[in-house]
Amino acid sequence: MSNGAVPETDPSEFEGADASFLKDFATLSTFGATDRGGVDRQAGSEADGDQRAWFSQLLMENGFTVSFDQIGNQFGMLDLEAGKPYVVVGSHLDSQPTAGRYDGAYGVLAAAHAAFRLAAEWQTSGNTPRYNLAVVNWFNEEGSRFKPSMMGSSVYTGKMTLDSALTTTDPAGITVREALVSSNALGDGTGPQAAYCAEIHIEQGRSMERDGIAIGVVDSNWAANKYEFVVHGEQAHTGSTVIADRHDALLGASLLVVAAREIADHFPDGAVHTSVGQLDVYPNSPVVVPSRVNLLLDLRSANEALLREADRMLHERLEQIERSARVKIEKVGSHCWPVTPYQPEGVALAEKIAANRGITHARVKTLAGHDSTNMKDIVPTVMLFVPSVEGISHNEHEYTTDQDIVTGLHVLTDVVRSLCEGELDPS
Amino acid sequence: MSNGAVPETDPSEFEGADASFLKDFATLSTFGATDRGGVDRQAGSEADGDQRAWFSQLLMENGFTVSFDQIGNQFGMLDLEAGKPYVVVGSHLDSQPTAGRYDGAYGVLAAAHAAFRLAAEWQTSGNTPRYNLAVVNWFNEEGSRFKPSMMGSSVYTGKMTLDSALTTTDPAGITVREALVSSNALGDGTGPQAAYCAEIHIEQGRSMERDGIAIGVVDSNWAANKYEFVVHGEQAHTGSTVIADRHDALLGASLLVVAAREIADHFPDGAVHTSVGQLDVYPNSPVVVPSRVNLLLDLRSANEALLREADRMLHERLEQIERSARVKIEKVGSHCWPVTPYQPEGVALAEKIAANRGITHARVKTLAGHDSTNMKDIVPTVMLFVPSVEGISHNEHEYTTDQDIVTGLHVLTDVVRSLCEGELDPS
Repeated sequence: MSNGAVPETDPSEFEGADASFLKDFATLSTFGATDRGGVDRQAGSEADGDQRAWFSQLLMENGFTVSFDQIGNQFGMLDLEAGKPYVVVGSHLDSQPTAGRYDGAYGVLAAAHAAFRLAAEWQTSGNTPRYNLAVVNWFNEEGSRFKPSMMGSSVYTGKMTLDSALTTTDPAGITVREALVSSNALGDGTGPQAAYCAEIHIEQGRSMERDGIAIGVVDSNWAANKYEFVVHGEQAHTGSTVIADRHDALLGASLLVVAAREIADHFPDGAVHTSVGQLDVYPNSPVVVPSRVNLLLDLRSANEALLREADRMLHERLEQIERSARVKIEKVGSHCWPVTPYQPEGVALAEKIAANRGITHARVKTLAGHDSTNMKDIVPTVMLFVPSVEGISHNEHEYTTDQDIVTGLHVLTDVVRSLCEGELDPS
Repeated sequence: MSNGAVPETDPSEFEGADASFLKDFATLSTFGATDRGGVDRQAGSEADGDQRAWFSQLLMENGFTVSFDQIGNQFGMLDLEAGKPYVVVGSHLDSQPTAGRYDGAYGVLAAAHAAFRLAAEWQTSGNTPRYNLAVVNWFNEEGSRFKPSMMGSSVYTGKMTLDSALTTTDPAGITVREALVSSNALGDGTGPQAAYCAEIHIEQGRSMERDGIAIGVVDSNWAANKYEFVVHGEQAHTGSTVIADRHDALLGASLLVVAAREIADHFPDGAVHTSVGQLDVYPNSPVVVPSRVNLLLDLRSANEALLREADRMLHERLEQIERSARVKIEKVGSHCWPVTPYQPEGVALAEKIAANRGITHARVKTLAGHDSTNMKDIVPTVMLFVPSVEGISHNEHEYTTDQDIVTGLHVLTDVVRSLCEGELDPS
């Protein structure tokens, strides 16, 4: 897919509720659509506001009550018995600036359609499950416009304070609060109380496609150390200042980018991932030696011992770079998390469901962070993956086949039914 | 000076016209003044408009006629005999985003005060020199907001078309034409016709200070090869995409920044200067492998053979980097100039004048480009330097002593008088 357009979903190949799901997915993909088949709908943007309004409408048409909490998480609630906690199922609709259609958006729409089917089932059968049901669209999972990522679920789970989230600014100086107000997404309160959580997402890697796996059951996340560095140099004239007098912050930053890759290459078999995705130069003028560079660097591994070793190497390199480029490197922020498991009973439940349906499945780890990585720390959480063609993600050519997203919807529906019916409750 | 505030000018230590010059320089330094003793007045900004209005006023109060040409060069003309060409003397008032007070601004104000003295002399003596006199403030010498640098003098000398200059946009999409209109600096016509040119500027290096030289007579410029590169990669997820699948444009760009420094270090004794001052990352999001980086890289040397060798090394490195980072590097622009001499008769004139005044002087080369580097290609041009304390430039701590800027003003006055009186005319 890397050089061609991404195929459109084709509801005509499916029937009934599955066709209706694909049709809604095609509509959802029009919000912030780019010329090259992707989407651009960063958190709190106009496109994000438009898709939220559309999603509210869809939820209400299906009998769900819509509300926004104080950090702009959007909930569609099915209150079957007043006062009972909720199975919270969903993902995020916001995207990177030029992104694919599937990341997050698939998980939100699959959650909604799973919930619609279950609501209809319970209405027909007259059964009342043990828990209420809430579909969620978490605010600002991507963190491209407002840092950090996973903001909505971090506030919901108490990992970030509401105030620090609402006062976060984008590069233009607009606050999260202002963006939420202008996209009609600022509510109040703390949202429905969760008893369980479920999320489905594309893998964003190529292991499931390679191994012919239709459903990945996530059993843990990779550990990650994320750092914000500021490299301090001194402004000078790029033409007239002799090299020996320069304190070039961009040279220091570049050495750090190269060092990060060398650290990844030091470990065999892709055991450690490193990257610098964001880097800003000041004053960023053609004829001025940069005095300051801000950059975000992260190290990730499924093996905490290897991550510690990579981190030690990085810090050793920082000192070498300070000396060789004659700069100072300041660590102004860090966000680190260990390998943490998803609850084993949730993993077992998802495996049993996939097996019952005769669907190929395997345990996988998530390298990326997800809202469910936050949620699993407060309630039992099930995280499912569907394959990504060629592993492409955060790219307009991101693609998962119609069959795979429909299969994922079926498994998610079964998982949510089981959670609502209390199958994981202590007996 | 590098860690302290820059001293204020102290007119009380000087008398008469010199004190008046220092007083005006102190006033000029208030436009766009920064907290740390520097200035921020990029081309076409509000601060630039304000200082131009003030400068127009100063010129008119001293009997000069003010006009702007079609690219916003500001002229103060003393028409002594209608129809005669002009000695054009000046520099630029625009600055880098956080800059010192002296770069450009000193040369413009010294030109004005030299012209005021000569106007008074001629009025007293009743003599009419062979040429008319025009003080100039060239538009956008710095090139930080609108690229390329030396825009006003490039249009004046026919090196850049008016249309391409006026349609150039800044990062916010504002055109040069719009910026000129909003800062009341868009005129018409092509400005006064030059017969000779003179400019005085701070050295922006430390050789004169080291050697105890009060006046540098510039005999040539360094050669330079300036390139704009675009490094093309592919967007991917920084967490989940395995390293072997990445095409990281920022890694490629960083390797290029490091290579540029290694090339400079390959040549002994500072014979080659290299730098990357501007670098922009897309999409510049914490969790996305960058797909594109734009950067400006330049190589400079006083020795054209060494510059050719440095350029050959750079192009060899480009191919290595494309392979090792799995990226494509595209050269989207280049701007190269050879070592070119200032007219020897102008150099001899300035040396004679400095010697007559008993001022220490030496021939120097300019590593940076100046408006006079453009002007010398169309008319005989004299370029003078005064020392820079510690060689600091493009930095708020840029500083030249009051004595040195006053000495420079005296020598410039004598040079302009000689040019106006036709001392360099073919006999």
